[in-house]
Amino acid sequence: MNAIGPWDRFDEAQAQVLHGNGAFLVAVDATGHPNAMTIGWLQLGTIWSRPVCHVLVRPSRYTHGCIEARGAFTVNVPLGTMVEELTVCGSRSGRDLDKFTELSLRTTPGTKVKAPLLVGCGVAYECRVVARAELDPTGILDEGIRAKYYPRGDFHTLFFGEILAAWEINA
Amino acid sequence: MNAIGPWDRFDEAQAQVLHGNGAFLVAVDATGHPNAMTIGWLQLGTIWSRPVCHVLVRPSRYTHGCIEARGAFTVNVPLGTMVEELTVCGSRSGRDLDKFTELSLRTTPGTKVKAPLLVGCGVAYECRVVARAELDPTGILDEGIRAKYYPRGDFHTLFFGEILAAWEINA
Repeated sequence: MNAIGPWDRFDEAQAQVLHGNGAFLVAVDATGHPNAMTIGWLQLGTIWSRPVCHVLVRPSRYTHGCIEARGAFTVNVPLGTMVEELTVCGSRSGRDLDKFTELSLRTTPGTKVKAPLLVGCGVAYECRVVARAELDPTGILDEGIRAKYYPRGDFHTLFFGEILAAWEINA
Repeated sequence: MNAIGPWDRFDEAQAQVLHGNGAFLVAVDATGHPNAMTIGWLQLGTIWSRPVCHVLVRPSRYTHGCIEARGAFTVNVPLGTMVEELTVCGSRSGRDLDKFTELSLRTTPGTKVKAPLLVGCGVAYECRVVARAELDPTGILDEGIRAKYYPRGDFHTLFFGEILAAWEINA
């Protein structure tokens, strides 16, 4: 596990989320169990003069409550691998299934936040939530986006996590 | 002016906004005049399955109304150059000064949006606003951020622009 700069593998991470099978957003629930959901959207960059990772989570998702409860998350980007795990984490809820046990996911503790990192992912970010904002009906200005992603009005919460560490992780 | 992928110069752009003197956020006002403000914060990445540029603008800024009126902006990143221009665009308002005339800024029309690109900047993005959100007191979870950036409660609007074109521009 090698420390990298927060932007060092940006293009590969974006290729994986946009054109690959996504990445794992990991957070810990109120009882201490980690949960992973699959995300296909991810932004990185500078806000408040620090490196920030931006993820979007609908309030209905189990992960939403985990991030709120703990104020931390990790993003783990498998570069072309872990396709089955991404499929399960994108289709099953942590309310009903302990995905870490079910998928035998191997973890290593976060070094800066109380959320684990996934072994086997090429790149990972440890993030401390510093801000959040809510999308709402007045905020979606593109009708195509509204029709495709928000037909039921379940707008995302935007979580902004300061990147406290970035890693290359190998199996 | 060469077309590039939206992530191709990400690391250099981030180095310029975070450790350099910033970048130019350009938008056109209701009368058709372009205006530029200096930004030090910028995120790129995938949202709504498309490349998105995220900029933060306080409602008090002249640029805020320009982006709202036109629904478009460009981000122009001078890689180590245009220090004086960045200083002026970061300290003077477009309400009081035609910065393009004052600074003799050379422009070329956007190819996809009705906002110009700045000649002399190394990298530029043409963006169509697809969504916005508001930061508010409940959304700033880090007390240090609140104290440093929002002592007067003037929270940023988050503008999300689909990147319709990205360019390397030379003088």
